[in-house]
Amino acid sequence: MPRAQLHDGCPQPRPDWVPECGGAGYATWILEGARPSGVASAIPAARRSRLTTADYVRGVRARDPGILGRALSLVESNAPAHREAARALLAALAPEAGRARRIGLTGIPGAGKSTFIEAFGLHLVERGHHVAVLAIDPSSQVTGGSILADKVRMERLGRHPSAFIRPSPSGGSLGGVTRKTREAILVCEAAGFDPILVETVGVGQNEVAVRAMVDAFVVLFIAGAGDELQGIKKGVMELADLLVINKADGDNRPRCLAALAEMRRVLRYLRPATEGWNSVALTASALTGEGVGEVWGGLEDFFRTGAATGAITRRRREQAVAWMHALIEERLRAGFYGAPGVRARREELERLVAAGSTDPLTGALFLLEAGGVAG
Amino acid sequence: MPRAQLHDGCPQPRPDWVPECGGAGYATWILEGARPSGVASAIPAARRSRLTTADYVRGVRARDPGILGRALSLVESNAPAHREAARALLAALAPEAGRARRIGLTGIPGAGKSTFIEAFGLHLVERGHHVAVLAIDPSSQVTGGSILADKVRMERLGRHPSAFIRPSPSGGSLGGVTRKTREAILVCEAAGFDPILVETVGVGQNEVAVRAMVDAFVVLFIAGAGDELQGIKKGVMELADLLVINKADGDNRPRCLAALAEMRRVLRYLRPATEGWNSVALTASALTGEGVGEVWGGLEDFFRTGAATGAITRRRREQAVAWMHALIEERLRAGFYGAPGVRARREELERLVAAGSTDPLTGALFLLEAGGVAG
Repeated sequence: MPRAQLHDGCPQPRPDWVPECGGAGYATWILEGARPSGVASAIPAARRSRLTTADYVRGVRARDPGILGRALSLVESNAPAHREAARALLAALAPEAGRARRIGLTGIPGAGKSTFIEAFGLHLVERGHHVAVLAIDPSSQVTGGSILADKVRMERLGRHPSAFIRPSPSGGSLGGVTRKTREAILVCEAAGFDPILVETVGVGQNEVAVRAMVDAFVVLFIAGAGDELQGIKKGVMELADLLVINKADGDNRPRCLAALAEMRRVLRYLRPATEGWNSVALTASALTGEGVGEVWGGLEDFFRTGAATGAITRRRREQAVAWMHALIEERLRAGFYGAPGVRARREELERLVAAGSTDPLTGALFLLEAGGVAG
Repeated sequence: MPRAQLHDGCPQPRPDWVPECGGAGYATWILEGARPSGVASAIPAARRSRLTTADYVRGVRARDPGILGRALSLVESNAPAHREAARALLAALAPEAGRARRIGLTGIPGAGKSTFIEAFGLHLVERGHHVAVLAIDPSSQVTGGSILADKVRMERLGRHPSAFIRPSPSGGSLGGVTRKTREAILVCEAAGFDPILVETVGVGQNEVAVRAMVDAFVVLFIAGAGDELQGIKKGVMELADLLVINKADGDNRPRCLAALAEMRRVLRYLRPATEGWNSVALTASALTGEGVGEVWGGLEDFFRTGAATGAITRRRREQAVAWMHALIEERLRAGFYGAPGVRARREELERLVAAGSTDPLTGALFLLEAGGVAG
C-alpha cells in the first residue's frame, strides 16, 4: 500500500493520495510507521482513490493505519468540497466515539514533553493499551516543521504497532485547529484507541481550547536553578488535574523535590480544575522511567473519582453542548464579519473606537448597520 | 427638589420620577445623600419630568446629584423607549469621558469590603478627590436588598459631598450588568469623578467582566486561622494588580503578615495581570486606617508605571475595540437565539447533543437551519 515516506532532508512530506478535489485547502502530513501486524488494508487497491463513508467506517474500525490517516485528513480538511463527506463520516462514527479517556498534555519545549510522552506512551502500550497521540502546535503551519521534529523524536513510540501519532494542522481559530482536533479525537475513539493524548505547547489560548475537549489535563514542569518552577507559561497550571515535574533524575532530583513542595503550596490557592478532584503534583523522569507509572496511576485515580462523582459525564455533556454553541457562534461571526459592507467599514471603526473618537456602542451600531443587522 | 427617601424597613425605595414610558424595564434605586453645597439643580422644576440631552449634559457636568442619578438611570434602563435617548446622551458625553482612573475592587462578604471602601473613599475625598463608587452585586435584583445594605454601611462616605455611591442593577448578562456599568463609568467620568471605584463581590464571572472595563484591579483578602489566605474565590487573584490583606489589626496582625509572605510566594507563579507591572501585595486595616494610604500609593505607582509603559493606553484601546465587538456578537446571538425557529428546537437539540445521540456539529447545523442561517 502506498504511503508517504519521510525523505531525508525533506521537512514536508505529503501523502501521495491527496484528493484531486482538495485543492490548496487540503493539508496534512503522514508519518512513517509500522503497519500493525495482521492488519491488511480494508479497501481494495482499485478503489483507493475514492472511499465511501462505509469504506471509511470499516477501515477506521479495523484500525487500518492508511484509512485512519485518510479519515483524519478528511475531517481535518479545510476544503469546502470535503465538508459534507466529513460530516457524514463523523455522524456515522458517532456511536463508536466517546469511549476513550481523553487526556490533554502540555509543557513548553524544554520541559521534555516529547521524551515524556514517548516514555508514557510506551508504558501504556506495553500494558496492552492502544494509544493515540494528537499533537497541536500553533507555530506550525502546513510548511512548518516543529511538530514533525517532535514526532521524529518519538521514534520508538511511533514504531509501536499499538501507537498512532498524528500532528494536527494548525489553523489558529476555533474553526481551525481546535475543531479539527476535537473531530480527530472522535475518529481515534471510533478506531478503539484509549487513552487519547492531545499534546499542545504551553501557550495560553491553545491550552484553554484543549482543556475544553479533554477529560483530564496534565501539565509538565521542570525545576529551575533554585527551588522554583520553570518551563511553563504562568497561568496554565490552574488548568491542570495532574502536575508533573519532569527530569527528576541525577543531580536535578533534590531541586525537583523542593519544587514539588513549593508547587503543592501554590496549589492550595488555585481553583481545582475539576470539581471534586484535588489536583495532584508528582515528579517523574522520562530518562529513568521513574514516576511515569505513577502519572498513569494518578490519571487512573482521576478517572475513577470522576466516574464516581459524575464529574466526567457532566463535563462531557457540557463540553458537547458548549461546542455546538461555539460552532453556531463561529458561523454567525463568520457570516457577519465576512459581509462586504462590514469588511469595508470594520477597520475604520476599530480605529475610531480605539482612538476614543467614537464610543463602542455607536461603533457597534454603525457596524451592525453596515452588515444589514438591525441594532 | 424631590428625591426618594430611604424609608425605615423599606428595602426597595424607588425614585418618584420614574419615567412614565419606562414600564417594567425601568429599575433603579437612589440613595439618601447630601447635596454638594452651592450646587443648585441645573433644571427648572417645570421641566423636571422630561429632560433633553442638553439638559442631561449640563446637569452631569455640574455634578448635580439629581440629574446625575437620572442620567445613570437612563443609561441603565432596559426599556426600549430609553434606548435612543441613552445612546444620544452617551455620545454627547463621550468627549468628557475617559479622564478618570478606573479601579475595580473585589472581595467576598466577610473580607470587609464595604468598610474598606468607606475608609479608602474617605482617605481620597479628604485629599480633594471626587470619588464615585459603582457597586455590582449579581445576587441583587430589582427587589434585592444586599447592595442597599452595603450602602447603608458606607454611611459616612455616602454623606460626603465629594462622594457618589451608586448600585448597578444586576442583569447577569453582557447586555445587562456589565454594559450598564461600563456606561455608568462614562457618565461619572463626564461628571468629573476621579477615581471611579467599581465594586463587585468575589464571583468569578463578574470579576472578569469588571476587569475588562477598569485600568486597575484590587482584590481584598483576609488571613485565616493559620497563615493561609481566605475570603476569596480561588482563581480571582490572578486578575489583581494590587492584593490587600484586610483586617490587619490587633491580634490578627501576625497572621496577616504570615499570609502576606505566603501571598508573595504564590504571586511568583501567577501571570501578572498587567504587562510591565508586578502585582503588589499589602496589608491594611479599615478599622485603624493603617495601610489604607499605602493602597492608594500602590495604585498611584500602578498608574505612573502604566502611563510610562503605555500599558494603560493600550489596555483602554483594546478594551474599547473588544467592547464594540462584544456588543456586536451579543446582538448577533440575541438575533439568532431569539428567532422563533431556534427557540422551538434549541432545547431538544441541546438534550440530544448532551446525551451523545447527536454530535455537536450536526446539532449546530440543524439549529442554524432552524434559524434560517446557511451552515
